[in-house]
Amino acid sequence: MSLFEKHQPLIERAIQAIQERTFYTPYPEHHKAYPEEGMATGKAAFEQQLGQPFNGLASANDDACWVGEEMSPYTLQPLGITYPAHATEALIAAANEVKKAWKNTSIATRAGILAEALDRIQSRYFEMAHATVHTTGQSFMMAFQASGPHANDRALEAMVLGYQELTRFPKEVAWQKPMGKFNITLNKTFTPVPKGIGVVIGCSTFPVWNSVPGIFANLIAGNPVVVKPHPKAILPIAIVVEELQGVLQEEGINPLIVQLAVDTHKKLIAKELVDHPDVALVDYTGGTEFGMYVEGLRNKTVFTEKAGVNSVIIDSVNDLNAVVQNLAFSVCLYSGQMCTAPQNFFIPATGVKEGDAIIPFEEVVARFKQAVEGVVQHPKMGAGTLAALQNEETLFRVNRSKNLGVPVLEPNAINNAEYEQALTCTPSILQVNSNDEAAFASELFGPIVMLIKTTDTNESIALAQRMARTKGAITCAAYTTDDAVEAQIREAMEEAFTPVSFNLTGFIWVNQAAAFSDFHVTGGNPAGNASFTNPEYVNKRFVWVGHRKLAQ
Amino acid sequence: MSLFEKHQPLIERAIQAIQERTFYTPYPEHHKAYPEEGMATGKAAFEQQLGQPFNGLASANDDACWVGEEMSPYTLQPLGITYPAHATEALIAAANEVKKAWKNTSIATRAGILAEALDRIQSRYFEMAHATVHTTGQSFMMAFQASGPHANDRALEAMVLGYQELTRFPKEVAWQKPMGKFNITLNKTFTPVPKGIGVVIGCSTFPVWNSVPGIFANLIAGNPVVVKPHPKAILPIAIVVEELQGVLQEEGINPLIVQLAVDTHKKLIAKELVDHPDVALVDYTGGTEFGMYVEGLRNKTVFTEKAGVNSVIIDSVNDLNAVVQNLAFSVCLYSGQMCTAPQNFFIPATGVKEGDAIIPFEEVVARFKQAVEGVVQHPKMGAGTLAALQNEETLFRVNRSKNLGVPVLEPNAINNAEYEQALTCTPSILQVNSNDEAAFASELFGPIVMLIKTTDTNESIALAQRMARTKGAITCAAYTTDDAVEAQIREAMEEAFTPVSFNLTGFIWVNQAAAFSDFHVTGGNPAGNASFTNPEYVNKRFVWVGHRKLAQ
Repeated sequence: MSLFEKHQPLIERAIQAIQERTFYTPYPEHHKAYPEEGMATGKAAFEQQLGQPFNGLASANDDACWVGEEMSPYTLQPLGITYPAHATEALIAAANEVKKAWKNTSIATRAGILAEALDRIQSRYFEMAHATVHTTGQSFMMAFQASGPHANDRALEAMVLGYQELTRFPKEVAWQKPMGKFNITLNKTFTPVPKGIGVVIGCSTFPVWNSVPGIFANLIAGNPVVVKPHPKAILPIAIVVEELQGVLQEEGINPLIVQLAVDTHKKLIAKELVDHPDVALVDYTGGTEFGMYVEGLRNKTVFTEKAGVNSVIIDSVNDLNAVVQNLAFSVCLYSGQMCTAPQNFFIPATGVKEGDAIIPFEEVVARFKQAVEGVVQHPKMGAGTLAALQNEETLFRVNRSKNLGVPVLEPNAINNAEYEQALTCTPSILQVNSNDEAAFASELFGPIVMLIKTTDTNESIALAQRMARTKGAITCAAYTTDDAVEAQIREAMEEAFTPVSFNLTGFIWVNQAAAFSDFHVTGGNPAGNASFTNPEYVNKRFVWVGHRKLAQ
Repeated sequence: MSLFEKHQPLIERAIQAIQERTFYTPYPEHHKAYPEEGMATGKAAFEQQLGQPFNGLASANDDACWVGEEMSPYTLQPLGITYPAHATEALIAAANEVKKAWKNTSIATRAGILAEALDRIQSRYFEMAHATVHTTGQSFMMAFQASGPHANDRALEAMVLGYQELTRFPKEVAWQKPMGKFNITLNKTFTPVPKGIGVVIGCSTFPVWNSVPGIFANLIAGNPVVVKPHPKAILPIAIVVEELQGVLQEEGINPLIVQLAVDTHKKLIAKELVDHPDVALVDYTGGTEFGMYVEGLRNKTVFTEKAGVNSVIIDSVNDLNAVVQNLAFSVCLYSGQMCTAPQNFFIPATGVKEGDAIIPFEEVVARFKQAVEGVVQHPKMGAGTLAALQNEETLFRVNRSKNLGVPVLEPNAINNAEYEQALTCTPSILQVNSNDEAAFASELFGPIVMLIKTTDTNESIALAQRMARTKGAITCAAYTTDDAVEAQIREAMEEAFTPVSFNLTGFIWVNQAAAFSDFHVTGGNPAGNASFTNPEYVNKRFVWVGHRKLAQ
């Protein structure tokens, strides 16, 4: 049985799920499959790697120097892991060498290999979770989900949508044109030709989740991939590359179809890579400045996720306490270091309707503050929810932004019982007026929340729309019990190409996006030009070429 | 019965045809439908329009001045037709005003309106054919086909592929996440949000065929369109806009969803239009320089067809005479003014195999020359096939390029019995060596053919590939009876994202592309970044936005 045949039921079901967009988890056996001892063996594997060279990778044939500067946000100690670092030219030369073989590998074979790799990656979820914890600062629970099953889901989603698009047209047809007494027959072929070498640039906070869709979309389309992680978050994605290479090798295919490109802050190579004339595709997650540069590259196909300013519009509610609790968790989770976390809360000066009552603005602020304190001070939940800051720059940003408004809640370190050195910071909540636009009109990445007093909901909507249009937005949370206001918000945010989550309370948060159902980033505003996973995300990675031959 | 219901069978059949890519003509009743008197009434309608203002258009509400500078390439007389010319700001303001209504028109309603317009356009084919003849210089037969049924086919193709993609995901679903003892339900909607105002810039040689795919793709996706024809070829597309506006108006929708933007050489407005911040989409057909400018626009979605250098590779043949006759017709047809016409013929110095014989290079050249002379001098076919030059610049180019190589056949005027003043030019055939790259390494638009003596077929292939990669190519014709050489050519041209037509002889030519089967331009080389009609061509015109609402 080929790998494709082995995984065909999964691939077909996943394609159906993308179509239906209802709840779908591709690996229902996930929970069963995690072995009881997974926690222990995963931890052991991670700890064994510490201080050692990462030997699992096939590499371009040059004299690599071994580098690595990862540091745990929990211990503030270097991980001491080194990886082979190659010259850009060596990476590109290797990719060029293997390019044709991968192009000529059938789409089904590619799909089988990629699905098999996703299977194998599952056996390393615990190890990847520890690797993610000690590079990103995420809690173990989030790290497990985000780098494990949720990342695998998005990789599978991108891969199977690619499979569907790549097999959309017949490989060959006989085209017969009636000419009266006879037919002219052209034998036609339709080939999705891969665009060329892809570079996937990762970020420091979600090194796997944000990178695998681009990697798997490129690979299914026949493009070799150079994976360039953030220098501070390499290990989690290195494991993914190792597993991909392993399956390729077993199938007799050159594993350098996918390569890891490691760099250091002393000599960053992202620009060199994306500028290389042989690089046709760039996937980028990270800051706006370099993202804009990437988007401006001529004759390259680029997919970006940059920064955004996510809004919360509070108009009217059924139960304000349920609302502020939900939002408090959203801003505390991983200390606001999710690209989907809310930042700007628009609240009318006239207060928020709760049923027939009006809750004054000040009371809304006070209740939200209490709710955040409730999470932060929760003895079991607090430190774990906030987790750690990935880097000190976020802490500096919190401090620099302190005077942007009236402090509602001062930021603080929070004690992490397990890791005393952990780099932590509780949310900084500031109150401003709607005309203090300079204070809130840019992304303040990290645990910084702006409570913005607006004239009324109309102004809240107008500001949320303008922020999304001009600064970008990935999410928007809105609370209203009024159908007309709901429709108004939908329409306004659609004009800024921003999805709205209405009235979330309980165990579902605006930060979350479900693979096979929710598009992540729309691609329509400055937060990014691409979307996980819409058809464009895969179609732009190959070119339809149709040859014709006169039948004799 | 709604317009959608009326046209639903056609739409569904056309979607199926795109999938199958076999021969399909959407209007089999075409031939029956052309009334016998069509020729006469079409001519009369065209002649009645000469010297008159074109009154059929709904216009932005400003004080338009009436302009027009079309001139017949057959009579060299001005057509004297004037059109309302609006300020860019007035056009964009009108588009902004109607934008929301069109976004909120259902996809099915849009599809019905567009299909109905295509039906109505059929009743004006004869008039459009005359309009096309006397603006582009095409023969009547070509003008009828290219601006009539073939353009309608490509418009329908773009529209129905858009319809398919826009309805690809459910409008709403209940997403239920199992949480153990209970489910969380989110009611989700998935909306394809139109990107915004589209500008479609036409060319002087195929004013309808090259413009309608972008117009119909934009409209089905909900984007208002400003149609900016070439100032010398307005009338054919003005009729299309008039018919579209007519159906919109009848359906109670503001006709300014689609507007005609007319300019003159004294004050061209294309740059002003594409630069306007409210313009989100640009479709462009025309020269490379402005095309590159358009491709470089930030934060806009652009679709271009620029220039290319199309190659012919002659390796081995069954019947050289059949081959040169086919190619001679291809270069004579509309005097080489098709973007699909071949320019560079790569022929090995060692000659061409015909069965077991080798035909020397000089003999191949002589036979090709004879074949072209045969077309040119054919008393019935010659003048009609060559038709007229759209503008004098093409004639100047023929003369300027005369010294690029050794003349094989000198260009000449050709007598057109019907129009003595017609601007005509027979093909200029030049012979060069493969190392005279400066001579053939750019598009020589018009009746200019370069016969390039190569060392062997390997060099022919390498040059054809390099030209396509660096200068762009829309077509490539190749002749070989050797399977290995055929595979080599396929692979080489795929690397340059160029489709190859093999061994065409008889009544099928490399210039032709069939809607619903052949992609026109691949989008993968410098000839253009878009393709009629691949899924990307429609997907890039809207953004998927998914809202979520907690079910209470």
